[in-house]
Amino acid sequence: MKFLSFRKNEDIAYIKLENPKEFNTLSLKLMQELDELLKDIAKRREVKVVIIEGSTKAFSAGHSLREVQASTSEEALDLFQTCYRLMRTIREIPQIVISKVQGVAVAAGCQLVAISDMAVASDEARFATPGINSGLFCSTPAVFLSRNIGRKKAAELLFTGNMMSAEEALQHGLVNKVVPREKLEKETEKLAKDVTKQSLDIIEIGKKQFYQQLNMEDFQALNYSTEVIAANTQHPDAKEGIEAFFEKRTPVWNDQLKIES
Amino acid sequence: MKFLSFRKNEDIAYIKLENPKEFNTLSLKLMQELDELLKDIAKRREVKVVIIEGSTKAFSAGHSLREVQASTSEEALDLFQTCYRLMRTIREIPQIVISKVQGVAVAAGCQLVAISDMAVASDEARFATPGINSGLFCSTPAVFLSRNIGRKKAAELLFTGNMMSAEEALQHGLVNKVVPREKLEKETEKLAKDVTKQSLDIIEIGKKQFYQQLNMEDFQALNYSTEVIAANTQHPDAKEGIEAFFEKRTPVWNDQLKIES
Amino acid sequence: MKFLSFRKNEDIAYIKLENPKEFNTLSLKLMQELDELLKDIAKRREVKVVIIEGSTKAFSAGHSLREVQASTSEEALDLFQTCYRLMRTIREIPQIVISKVQGVAVAAGCQLVAISDMAVASDEARFATPGINSGLFCSTPAVFLSRNIGRKKAAELLFTGNMMSAEEALQHGLVNKVVPREKLEKETEKLAKDVTKQSLDIIEIGKKQFYQQLNMEDFQALNYSTEVIAANTQHPDAKEGIEAFFEKRTPVWNDQLKIES
Repeated sequence: MKFLSFRKNEDIAYIKLENPKEFNTLSLKLMQELDELLKDIAKRREVKVVIIEGSTKAFSAGHSLREVQASTSEEALDLFQTCYRLMRTIREIPQIVISKVQGVAVAAGCQLVAISDMAVASDEARFATPGINSGLFCSTPAVFLSRNIGRKKAAELLFTGNMMSAEEALQHGLVNKVVPREKLEKETEKLAKDVTKQSLDIIEIGKKQFYQQLNMEDFQALNYSTEVIAANTQHPDAKEGIEAFFEKRTPVWNDQLKIES
Repeated sequence: MKFLSFRKNEDIAYIKLENPKEFNTLSLKLMQELDELLKDIAKRREVKVVIIEGSTKAFSAGHSLREVQASTSEEALDLFQTCYRLMRTIREIPQIVISKVQGVAVAAGCQLVAISDMAVASDEARFATPGINSGLFCSTPAVFLSRNIGRKKAAELLFTGNMMSAEEALQHGLVNKVVPREKLEKETEKLAKDVTKQSLDIIEIGKKQFYQQLNMEDFQALNYSTEVIAANTQHPDAKEGIEAFFEKRTPVWNDQLKIES
Repeated sequence: MKFLSFRKNEDIAYIKLENPKEFNTLSLKLMQELDELLKDIAKRREVKVVIIEGSTKAFSAGHSLREVQASTSEEALDLFQTCYRLMRTIREIPQIVISKVQGVAVAAGCQLVAISDMAVASDEARFATPGINSGLFCSTPAVFLSRNIGRKKAAELLFTGNMMSAEEALQHGLVNKVVPREKLEKETEKLAKDVTKQSLDIIEIGKKQFYQQLNMEDFQALNYSTEVIAANTQHPDAKEGIEAFFEKRTPVWNDQLKIES
């Protein structure tokens, strides 16, 4: 890999964006590499959580304006469609994706935080969608930003390009936790481990269901979810999990062996 | 009634889940009883608000895992469809439903709080959707939870199974008020009485309209609501209410006699 | 103009509701006048932001109950359809609309705040949707209120008719900022100027995209937004904006001349 580093520890995958000199811009090549890596992680089913991080000063500055500048209309479409595919992959892999944010998370960098299932930020992290300052409205970052935070604040960020502090990001719901920088590592890990104790199969069922139902009318959502949970009761991990609950012991998931091998 | 107690005081109905030893689990029979009781309340139109409460230690622990464990695929579907019907009934009755929460509101217990029109919690109340801990993802609780609070927090609760405090529940929008335990009774009553001073007919029009429009595109919603409000202007209670407003007196609603009888 | 005053300063339009004795009720005539004025502003493209304000004691008390009282069924429908058209105009003009709120913003007055792209409130401002008190449920205000704030709080406001403080409005996301009354002028201006430094063409692209995508399923929204941003890259203002970014200078927008003339 040229633009990312990757390590695996027990059932957590750690992906680091490795272009700190350019504030970890999501260049075309980086996005392709990340997309392939995530698809590989999904296929192997060796981890349950993926933590994505940047560097000290920047989580990510978003798309490369150099690349955008050099693009024809077709190339620009290709660039943003690559980003679209990456976002879909993040949504479709069975693992929970956690963004671990230091420094600035800007434009498509902010989008990456927004599409993530969860996010933990250092207290000095800052968020913005400032494309409009350069005449390029953050249309794509707007999508998941406005599905994380309210309309008024989203509009403010998008039409002024102004920065939002970590504390504001927490209040508005873009991140799950804000912690001092020296605790970021540990707190992100802690959140990840609260997920890795679960069954990957059930995480997968849940992740698919959670986002599917979000896009439905209330009772269409409940009807769909009723079928999902009824089916879930017959899964070996539900059988085991409920038995373990009554026996007051830790359940042993179906996927345990696979992950340990 | 075997699983509930019920009393009526002026135009408020009080329903108490009566299975504190099992943390007021929403057993199949309890859900059927509650559904029937609510339908009866709807039909009689004697009250304007329904307050649902549990016991000191538990609002409700959700579905009975014993029942789930013993269920075939068909029986599980029947169990969750019974819950679906109960949720629909809560939505469809003309009365405003307020959850009054002490202790834990877990899984389908949390769902009951989420589907309620309003909720008041004691400051020691706690909320969770921990099904995933037992291999059974809280798919159905996810629906209204994620329509009350933001995606990131909802995902955290659903994929970690961790508890949320009453204070967090307030910040994220799952409950309307958090009060010390000794004030819970009084504050819930106060909120209820702010509703019971209204006309039941108009509450009914409003409740239907409020939830219908929530599931529509912005201007489809506004168009539909324009028709609703235009029709509402011709309702006797609007005629009376507006007249009373100008005469600086308390309006006498159309349904007054019915309720008093 | 009879019900409004209007002035233009650089690229900001200031509209003041001018009926303080009646708490700036949105009478039929006022709504028609406001609608026409906004359409004219949209056509001229001389400003980038529209600030709407009321008077010291009232932003607006909403529709005229006198007019509602005097209306036949057809007239009532006409009244609310006029309001519908005004809301659409606010949504469809290229400019960013900011509500500047002092005093009470009630019923359709609260709706006006909610439909606005942004809002700044004085710390003594108060918000309510009390139609139900007069037997006329705030169905139309409910639409954008419930698209700004959570369900539980929206239901509370709609079914009790109770007031919400400026601070609560901020916490729930109905307004962007709350400031002491003596700073309201300056802070609203500041927010407006963070927008007027942008290109009107790009504001227009962004405003249309932002609201369109909000009403779509997640990846339908992202797919649509991908096309919008790819097209945006070829806009002269994006070319200029990105060049200016690399040259560390202020961009000169395409529309500059038009606005200055």
